[in-house]
Amino acid sequence: MLITNASQLLTLAGGPQRGPDLGRLGIIENGAALVRAGRIAAVGTTPELRYAFPDEPGYDAGGMVVMPGFVDPHTHTVFAGDRAFEFEMRLQGKSYLEIMAAGGGIISTVQATRAASLETLKAETRARLRRMLRNGTTTAEVKTGYGLETQAELLQMQAILELDAEGPMELAPTFLGAHAVPARYKDDPAGYTTLVCKEMLPEVLAWWQQRAPGKPLPFVDVFCETGAFDLAQTRRILQTARNLGFPLKVHADEFDNLGGAGLAVELGAASADHLVKTSPAEIEALGKSDTVAVALPCTPFGLAEPHYTPAQAILAAGGVLAIASDLNPGTAWCENMQFALALACRYLRLTPAQAIAAATINAAAAIGRAEQIGSLEPGKQADLLILSVSDHRQLGYRFGGNLVARVMKNGEFIS
Amino acid sequence: MLITNASQLLTLAGGPQRGPDLGRLGIIENGAALVRAGRIAAVGTTPELRYAFPDEPGYDAGGMVVMPGFVDPHTHTVFAGDRAFEFEMRLQGKSYLEIMAAGGGIISTVQATRAASLETLKAETRARLRRMLRNGTTTAEVKTGYGLETQAELLQMQAILELDAEGPMELAPTFLGAHAVPARYKDDPAGYTTLVCKEMLPEVLAWWQQRAPGKPLPFVDVFCETGAFDLAQTRRILQTARNLGFPLKVHADEFDNLGGAGLAVELGAASADHLVKTSPAEIEALGKSDTVAVALPCTPFGLAEPHYTPAQAILAAGGVLAIASDLNPGTAWCENMQFALALACRYLRLTPAQAIAAATINAAAAIGRAEQIGSLEPGKQADLLILSVSDHRQLGYRFGGNLVARVMKNGEFIS
Repeated sequence: MLITNASQLLTLAGGPQRGPDLGRLGIIENGAALVRAGRIAAVGTTPELRYAFPDEPGYDAGGMVVMPGFVDPHTHTVFAGDRAFEFEMRLQGKSYLEIMAAGGGIISTVQATRAASLETLKAETRARLRRMLRNGTTTAEVKTGYGLETQAELLQMQAILELDAEGPMELAPTFLGAHAVPARYKDDPAGYTTLVCKEMLPEVLAWWQQRAPGKPLPFVDVFCETGAFDLAQTRRILQTARNLGFPLKVHADEFDNLGGAGLAVELGAASADHLVKTSPAEIEALGKSDTVAVALPCTPFGLAEPHYTPAQAILAAGGVLAIASDLNPGTAWCENMQFALALACRYLRLTPAQAIAAATINAAAAIGRAEQIGSLEPGKQADLLILSVSDHRQLGYRFGGNLVARVMKNGEFIS
Repeated sequence: MLITNASQLLTLAGGPQRGPDLGRLGIIENGAALVRAGRIAAVGTTPELRYAFPDEPGYDAGGMVVMPGFVDPHTHTVFAGDRAFEFEMRLQGKSYLEIMAAGGGIISTVQATRAASLETLKAETRARLRRMLRNGTTTAEVKTGYGLETQAELLQMQAILELDAEGPMELAPTFLGAHAVPARYKDDPAGYTTLVCKEMLPEVLAWWQQRAPGKPLPFVDVFCETGAFDLAQTRRILQTARNLGFPLKVHADEFDNLGGAGLAVELGAASADHLVKTSPAEIEALGKSDTVAVALPCTPFGLAEPHYTPAQAILAAGGVLAIASDLNPGTAWCENMQFALALACRYLRLTPAQAIAAATINAAAAIGRAEQIGSLEPGKQADLLILSVSDHRQLGYRFGGNLVARVMKNGEFIS
């Protein structure tokens, strides 16, 4: 198929975009893309490609923007239930303790998720994935972390694998057994850390080798934060994971600076995520590393917190910056990467072009898939969007809606 | 038609909700609504109404929330073009003067709107109205104000009238000739004020009596703000308008406190809108008046400004609080009232129930239509939404998406 007449075809060609280089869209005006066998076979202007492939069936993009599908590199999409009651309590002025006493907090999602069958978990998640697709996300990272015991975590992982196999959304799995300290270990986080290292990680590895032989291992992630896992516990878990061969991610510096970002760089993690309270020295270290800095602007927004990731400092230091939705039931139930872009423009001071690159090619780098997705270049997956507007700068500028008209995944229009 | 099986039917019965009374949803669990001849004929539980109207054709709401359509009481939806280039310049750190020199600002929308034919203006606006409808807005106030000369203002008014007649979106028109001082009068705002009073308002009245005889007059609104119209000019325009019989609205205290809110109360305006820098004394006065306080949270959000309407103080003073999108191409291109609700929860500290009442019955009061719309009560228009969720608190809690599954306007499903 030859997609023609894109007012702007955003190729995002040339790999992940570091530091001030962020925002190279590789715009082809009156652009076209040749799609064959689920992949991009060629990009160019409409006259060029129409001349080169005169018999190829055409699809007229109607003077609209064509761009790579969004890659959402940090989500907690697999869960059961919701926390709307807790949101209301917060707005009624109830204290953290009152909310906990009423059954709120992450533990409430853990209970709902543990209680859900695989089918329920998949059904609730599938509905979210459909909405994310319609909003233009064609690949999403998805974490476990609402099980907090081996079998429940593996059930979440199974849901991720099965939903990925089912498609059309492509999922990048992450094991986040160290998302929170479960109630049973409330007074013994070190004991839970030992459980993660000695039991969970080896079992995840064995399970994976049996269920998904030959597939790259999932990421292992830790929530390094006051009230969750301290730096020493985080280090212990990530080092164990690395020794087993897992690639790494870290939740770092969301509320407090515990040193998680520095650890991510030291251990060669694929990404360090949140990064609100990151120190200047750690920003420098990130800037010199290949660890992608993933900003999650929906989370401070969801909490009405005024502090966002210091994106300009990260860019000045030469970092590879990505943005993600952080979709989760506690702080940011947002299924629309376009809204993450609107926040990134306003609160990270990214231009629309920078936000687009952060949500495509750089987001692909954050999940180790920059060779396959995140740009429209020959050989890459034909994961692309046709917007309902003719200028990419409408993304970020408009907010609260959906500017995606059509979504193609692996060469098939799925919306 | 009998709509049945609403997990929660939100009636919003009982008229506009003043002060701490805000948030009375009038929930009927397992609710039903009888719709006849475009109006609500009865509401009750599903068993009650099914027993009373056994032969009425049914529509199964499937265990989802049924609620009144959103009323958006402050928009600038009729315009041509966009200002995405200006948004990008701002993010690139360009100054206000550089943006003006590049043709930015409200004057750029005035130029595009003056240059547009009636058909173009209607076509661009119609597309926005369609999207607003799909997001659940069934009635919207729409202002002129991008003409700034008599004929161009009347062309905008004509677009509003014709689009209202075309439906299905119902429009409440407002004349905003005093939206900005046009370039020709740059050094003579008093001269432009005289033009508005002596020429525009009488011509609008004569035009209206000819084009829409018997229809209630449109609102007259003034942007009372530093750089636009000062308090004396605002008073002159609004008093002239009132003497001609027009109902009033005021843009007050968006950036500076000039006394617009107090003037709105003094003159008995239907609403005072923005209200970010309103003084405690004016909040007290609003609280004792029938002038609806319309918060526009999308505007500070769009500008990434930290200051929002002091909604809690307005409620404590006994005010009637509404929320609106302020849809406009400069500061807030947002076509989704659900996003205004999400902001109102976070930045005005409204509960979802309060935000829903502010966006339905109180918003209807802000445009003088609380007798016809804004609640599901016998005799009112059958303007209602079926959400894709079973609990109203999902509104506000989730953000960036669209939770509206079906939209009914005047008894017909239109989406």
